[in-house]
Amino acid sequence: MTRIAILGATGYTALELIKILLRHPEAEIVALTSRQEGNVPAALVHPSLTGRLDLALENLEPAQVAARAECVFSCLPHGASASTIPSLLNAGCRVVDFSADYRLDSPEVFANWYGEKHPDPDRLGKVVYGLPELFRKDIPPSNLVANPGCYPTSAILALAPLLKLGLISKEDIIIDSKSGVSGAGRTLKLTTHYPECNESISAYNIGRHRHTPEIERILGIAAGAKVEVIFTPHLVPMDRGILSTAYSRPVRQASEEQVLQALRDFYADEPFVRVVDHLPGTKDSQNTNFCDVTARVVRDRIVTLSCLDNLIKGAAGAAVQNFNLMYGFAETMAL
Amino acid sequence: MTRIAILGATGYTALELIKILLRHPEAEIVALTSRQEGNVPAALVHPSLTGRLDLALENLEPAQVAARAECVFSCLPHGASASTIPSLLNAGCRVVDFSADYRLDSPEVFANWYGEKHPDPDRLGKVVYGLPELFRKDIPPSNLVANPGCYPTSAILALAPLLKLGLISKEDIIIDSKSGVSGAGRTLKLTTHYPECNESISAYNIGRHRHTPEIERILGIAAGAKVEVIFTPHLVPMDRGILSTAYSRPVRQASEEQVLQALRDFYADEPFVRVVDHLPGTKDSQNTNFCDVTARVVRDRIVTLSCLDNLIKGAAGAAVQNFNLMYGFAETMAL
Amino acid sequence: MTRIAILGATGYTALELIKILLRHPEAEIVALTSRQEGNVPAALVHPSLTGRLDLALENLEPAQVAARAECVFSCLPHGASASTIPSLLNAGCRVVDFSADYRLDSPEVFANWYGEKHPDPDRLGKVVYGLPELFRKDIPPSNLVANPGCYPTSAILALAPLLKLGLISKEDIIIDSKSGVSGAGRTLKLTTHYPECNESISAYNIGRHRHTPEIERILGIAAGAKVEVIFTPHLVPMDRGILSTAYSRPVRQASEEQVLQALRDFYADEPFVRVVDHLPGTKDSQNTNFCDVTARVVRDRIVTLSCLDNLIKGAAGAAVQNFNLMYGFAETMAL
Amino acid sequence: MTRIAILGATGYTALELIKILLRHPEAEIVALTSRQEGNVPAALVHPSLTGRLDLALENLEPAQVAARAECVFSCLPHGASASTIPSLLNAGCRVVDFSADYRLDSPEVFANWYGEKHPDPDRLGKVVYGLPELFRKDIPPSNLVANPGCYPTSAILALAPLLKLGLISKEDIIIDSKSGVSGAGRTLKLTTHYPECNESISAYNIGRHRHTPEIERILGIAAGAKVEVIFTPHLVPMDRGILSTAYSRPVRQASEEQVLQALRDFYADEPFVRVVDHLPGTKDSQNTNFCDVTARVVRDRIVTLSCLDNLIKGAAGAAVQNFNLMYGFAETMAL
Repeated sequence: MTRIAILGATGYTALELIKILLRHPEAEIVALTSRQEGNVPAALVHPSLTGRLDLALENLEPAQVAARAECVFSCLPHGASASTIPSLLNAGCRVVDFSADYRLDSPEVFANWYGEKHPDPDRLGKVVYGLPELFRKDIPPSNLVANPGCYPTSAILALAPLLKLGLISKEDIIIDSKSGVSGAGRTLKLTTHYPECNESISAYNIGRHRHTPEIERILGIAAGAKVEVIFTPHLVPMDRGILSTAYSRPVRQASEEQVLQALRDFYADEPFVRVVDHLPGTKDSQNTNFCDVTARVVRDRIVTLSCLDNLIKGAAGAAVQNFNLMYGFAETMAL
Repeated sequence: MTRIAILGATGYTALELIKILLRHPEAEIVALTSRQEGNVPAALVHPSLTGRLDLALENLEPAQVAARAECVFSCLPHGASASTIPSLLNAGCRVVDFSADYRLDSPEVFANWYGEKHPDPDRLGKVVYGLPELFRKDIPPSNLVANPGCYPTSAILALAPLLKLGLISKEDIIIDSKSGVSGAGRTLKLTTHYPECNESISAYNIGRHRHTPEIERILGIAAGAKVEVIFTPHLVPMDRGILSTAYSRPVRQASEEQVLQALRDFYADEPFVRVVDHLPGTKDSQNTNFCDVTARVVRDRIVTLSCLDNLIKGAAGAAVQNFNLMYGFAETMAL
Repeated sequence: MTRIAILGATGYTALELIKILLRHPEAEIVALTSRQEGNVPAALVHPSLTGRLDLALENLEPAQVAARAECVFSCLPHGASASTIPSLLNAGCRVVDFSADYRLDSPEVFANWYGEKHPDPDRLGKVVYGLPELFRKDIPPSNLVANPGCYPTSAILALAPLLKLGLISKEDIIIDSKSGVSGAGRTLKLTTHYPECNESISAYNIGRHRHTPEIERILGIAAGAKVEVIFTPHLVPMDRGILSTAYSRPVRQASEEQVLQALRDFYADEPFVRVVDHLPGTKDSQNTNFCDVTARVVRDRIVTLSCLDNLIKGAAGAAVQNFNLMYGFAETMAL
Repeated sequence: MTRIAILGATGYTALELIKILLRHPEAEIVALTSRQEGNVPAALVHPSLTGRLDLALENLEPAQVAARAECVFSCLPHGASASTIPSLLNAGCRVVDFSADYRLDSPEVFANWYGEKHPDPDRLGKVVYGLPELFRKDIPPSNLVANPGCYPTSAILALAPLLKLGLISKEDIIIDSKSGVSGAGRTLKLTTHYPECNESISAYNIGRHRHTPEIERILGIAAGAKVEVIFTPHLVPMDRGILSTAYSRPVRQASEEQVLQALRDFYADEPFVRVVDHLPGTKDSQNTNFCDVTARVVRDRIVTLSCLDNLIKGAAGAAVQNFNLMYGFAETMAL
């Protein structure tokens, strides 16, 4: 049994992680931390855990966490995560980081998009991006894995194969994404107050969403060259799920069947990517670690569509997939 | 044109009121107040008003309000409302109060349920309860009207006729109410954070919801005797609408048709109560000032069902209905 | 591995059952039947099963089913179920029946409420009602288990202990239930067309819902005497979840804490009933086999509240719980 | 008072039209037709009309309609509409057609996209496209107006000004649209069955939605040249509202402020187009005849966003706006 701590355990991704780990035969949750909610039973903050987890939230220092746990999942906000993780690594813990802190490779890009200095700049660029479908072999030896963002996972899984195979242009990619409200977190905001966002769809952060450089970095690795994207996130009145509709330009004539076959071949051995013929809805992958991908050719464009559950394949499920790879368990265990 | 001010104009009932008054041929909105949001255009706080109302929210004193407006709709919270209204009345304004401050007739009952001393106790018991279906004749001469609560309107319109006609017992009334989320207001709370309340129904404030004494007082007037009720409110994942399912005990044998006919007769001349044969959904009266009422007889009980839009017939629509009566306009004007 | 067939596999309860069985270490699904959809891959009808289950829907006769499977879950409609099950039992299959066909004990009561003659009247009254919390010891030896209805499970789990302990009167029970839309099934109806039922709540089948005699029969067994209830179901705009708010009358003075303690004691060893202090929302038990129960005392009434997921504890989860008991597996396996 | 008939009065656009006309001081509804539902009170089919409209649905021939009404709104499906309208025009009626039958100008394009021969090909290309913002002066003299589609209205209002002003390229336009479920109509379909589409977003009809040629035709008129678009519609779990996010390429450098100012200037005198600075949500224009438009510049693209209520500005509201123009009433009357 691997002893596990979860930092920042009051949010939705942490809750989802707890639920997955509770059915994981090789994991035991030994600590849950929270700065604000310290010393209350976890079930008080997350009523759905009643009778399932007899553990309190605690306000623990890194050393205390390391004394109890071998593996730490950090659900802390960006900045806070990279301020805490170095001590954990030094104390011998292995870490899966849900924040964006180690997803980029440049302190300057981080500062540009996040508006603050990176707390641990020397490590940037040396941390594996925890998307097994692209970087599987680098995950097992890692002590720190940067768990991908939810939007990036959906966009990258649809576009990276086409870039890697040289099927589409690097210069003309538009990603129009739609997300359920849990993606905005548990912190109270007027935009996610029920009567404001229910029965309404809107775009937000156009051209300045922080997942943009993350998408561009990883697509750039897939393409072997700089990639720039237009990324537009939208808020959809539903709990969970992301659909990314991406528009790219084929570099040579390609039929719909050829594009689909390229995707099918690329993901032939992947347990969690389903290349489907139909147009998927986010509900098909709701509460699962699957990402459903398909493509259509319309006029001079390839339209790819990818659906996933932002809290599972877009966060907690991917984290457990990384954990399984790090510790040599079956990749699909508990997922 | 009657010059109108709205106090506490940032909430949902105020927004709904503004929308109704914008199409009212005899009303002109001349002032909107807000303590926190003072001096921003109303359309910034309520984007749906863009291009429809060129007025700023202002932090105004009662005297300033009275200098501009003849009629004041107070959407202030309880306590604050009764602290402000006396000055307005003294300055010659006529007032429709959305708060609960003048709906009860006893400072003691108010203190028991609201946990604070009433700011204007002498006026209690002398203010008309602005439910035209029961107190129409007292509204035109009034300078202050206590606009009814949303739950009470739904419960009272279903039960008062049966009590008044002596059809049901005063002693065994259960009101199980279900409300959309806008009823909880615009103030941020975890319980109305989208991912918490979406796809979930729950009861709240069982046995201690503040609408209980209001329902009991008005049903008591209808019955001509003390009435006690069990009142259980529930939060339903939808924007607006209240359905009250009430269980009462007939004092003598009564067929379903007799109960329905009693309701039809009672409301024969009412423009906003529809006694229907089918089981109404809240959507039938959504965005209208109607209350739909029906009844069924099951074993030894009468089950009454009443639906209304909590922001219209349960708040702003009723307020305009009262305003129309106070000023001698057609009761249905703009509704 | 127990070989399993599912009859009537196109609906929501069957889909949920499939998902649970896919993670069950002792179960193997070997046949899925459908009369209308025969001979299409299951994943075509249920896209969420893509890549998870490589099995077609087939139009199979009972003999063909029995040739392949040891255990059969029947998700057929009432009437059809009891017309098929006798052949399966004769052929040596053990059966969990999701329909209402074997939940009542009298052909007359069945005919009254279901409007048709029972196809297998002799077996009525001899089949265990598969609610382990009340009838656990009778389940393991059974070859046929009547899986409880969703509303009855919620109502019975809240009320049966109080009746069994003699805490409440048998004569004055009102059950006001609220259900998500999946409870109405997958057959297209105007009432469950999205724009009709979204953003609306309504009651239906008041006084004549077919779960009424089922609730009364089982509560009667708990009480050791005839029980009559008023049962009012409501349709709530959400996918899944049932909240039952029940009003009963204590036969002697009882404090809230005493009622809660009685419930806690009654369910002390139950893995799937959580007696909670707070007012539960249906989301707390969403996608789980839990039923959350609590109670309040208001004036002269006990108000019990119970929440469960209608597709899990109200159907497929309960069925697997029964299956586990029938075959001697851990009761919580895969749940 | 203009006497009005509505053909095909059982659907959602007809219901919305009825509600608008009920508050229109110059309109009187004198006939409602339905082939399937003939001879039932309208309120039985649309319970929200109870007590508001005492009229039955009737199965009327065109001659019977023409005998009663001056102006006819046809909510018939495509094909059926153009089979009926010629007789009405011959009988002297003026007609607003909600169907797509007269929106295109070529029988061949119609046949390609709708898969059937046009019933009234000679009239194609001679009927005004009822979008007052582009074709206002042609509407008053018309006896037949083709009311625009919901998606086209949202896309055209955002893009036509930029094309007309020569700000964007005609060759690289992507329209990613999101619509509430009422847009799919009232006919029962699995895709709009509540438990299927609730809590899910999906794309549909990619590259082959019938609104594509309509959008291209009108944008082509605005551009003065052939325009081709990629149009991707999505189904969003909400009742009503369309958000179109369109990506176009500026032909010369243009700042965000310049694009916004171009839109503001273009729509300076329009009563129902609001050019806003913020990112609009569909809720801002819900239940109104407004279309909210804004723009952002991201990298080498202009991103325009437009929101409207598909049943109002996208159907019934636009129809009444056309009716007002045809009959010389104030354009905003009842809207």
